[in-house]
Amino acid sequence: MPDPVTIWTYDWVPEGPRGFVRDLRLRWACEEAGIAYDVRSVAFEDRATNHLDRQPFGQVPMLEDGEVRLFESGAALIHLARRSEALMPRDPAGEAEALQWLVAALNSVEMVSVPWWFLTISGEKDNKLTGWMDQRLGQLEAVLAEREWLAAGRFTAADLLMADVLRVGLLRKHGERPASEAYVARVTGRPAFAKAHADQLAHFGAADKHRETETA
Amino acid sequence: MPDPVTIWTYDWVPEGPRGFVRDLRLRWACEEAGIAYDVRSVAFEDRATNHLDRQPFGQVPMLEDGEVRLFESGAALIHLARRSEALMPRDPAGEAEALQWLVAALNSVEMVSVPWWFLTISGEKDNKLTGWMDQRLGQLEAVLAEREWLAAGRFTAADLLMADVLRVGLLRKHGERPASEAYVARVTGRPAFAKAHADQLAHFGAADKHRETETA
Repeated sequence: MPDPVTIWTYDWVPEGPRGFVRDLRLRWACEEAGIAYDVRSVAFEDRATNHLDRQPFGQVPMLEDGEVRLFESGAALIHLARRSEALMPRDPAGEAEALQWLVAALNSVEMVSVPWWFLTISGEKDNKLTGWMDQRLGQLEAVLAEREWLAAGRFTAADLLMADVLRVGLLRKHGERPASEAYVARVTGRPAFAKAHADQLAHFGAADKHRETETA
Repeated sequence: MPDPVTIWTYDWVPEGPRGFVRDLRLRWACEEAGIAYDVRSVAFEDRATNHLDRQPFGQVPMLEDGEVRLFESGAALIHLARRSEALMPRDPAGEAEALQWLVAALNSVEMVSVPWWFLTISGEKDNKLTGWMDQRLGQLEAVLAEREWLAAGRFTAADLLMADVLRVGLLRKHGERPASEAYVARVTGRPAFAKAHADQLAHFGAADKHRETETA
């Protein structure tokens, strides 16, 4: 048995982001691939500065796998995907197809959706990124109307990431996207997602109890 | 000799984006690695729909390498980097470090800089992404003040990509970033960048001449 990998996240976050912190992507990948993992924490307080030696933007997650240390959930996901055929095909054409869709989630969809979301929750519901967001979601809808999975005719790490990008309530704010909605339901309906999601909620919930004890 | 790879770009673009179209990232990588390549074109006119079978967002570049076909410049760059130690170290720790910084350029820097730029050229000079942009550039400046290259103590594909992300005139709009400016000058001072840049300008310039002939 190889040693377990270590996934680093915060020790606590407020209610809002629970279930969406990006350590979930790595928990989920490990669950899909049967890779053993531990979860460890850095403090949410002072997060902007307390782990800059390991994550220069003050974010989580980080991944440790033996001598390999990685930040950026997308990079850690590519690393895990190369360890297991459950996450990425081994043939060069299939691997490339999964890689292109994984990067598309990061750099063609999330590059629009995250700033769009940021402007929206900042009070700009009709912001100048809305047209761009609609265009991207429409292009993706056309793809997902034609196939069940993004790459290689099967579930891959690209679906894990794209579904995680899309599941933040983006779709219903942008009109009818039935193929995309069915896709997100299909991918997040996998048992490995349910396990990762429940474990993240339990992790942050346990910190609530600890906080209550400390202040009792 | 392996067959040359094929880089696909547009046949023509207006003056503004010349020198910045993302086929440059792949030309530059091939030049660094000594990988033979051809450049082929799809029409700029009707670009939103004329190559959706190969690029679902209507963008360029695409890369062909034997049976492997990839869109997303970041994914194509990772593919090329794995072919050549000139672009990415072969040891697992060094490879992971290059990969994390390559993804950081796509998903922690460009995810802010591209939408920030879009809002700025849309007339919103003081937009709500400005604070986030400043924070990211400040975090990156702290990293680049300490080292010459992002990963593994040497030039890698991560520097190629990060310098390409930063060279769009971002830095001077956000105060003094001397380490970042020196870094961009260092990376884009490489002969492979100059060759790729000149070749892209020549490619689009040749299309100008062709258009003049056609309308003469």
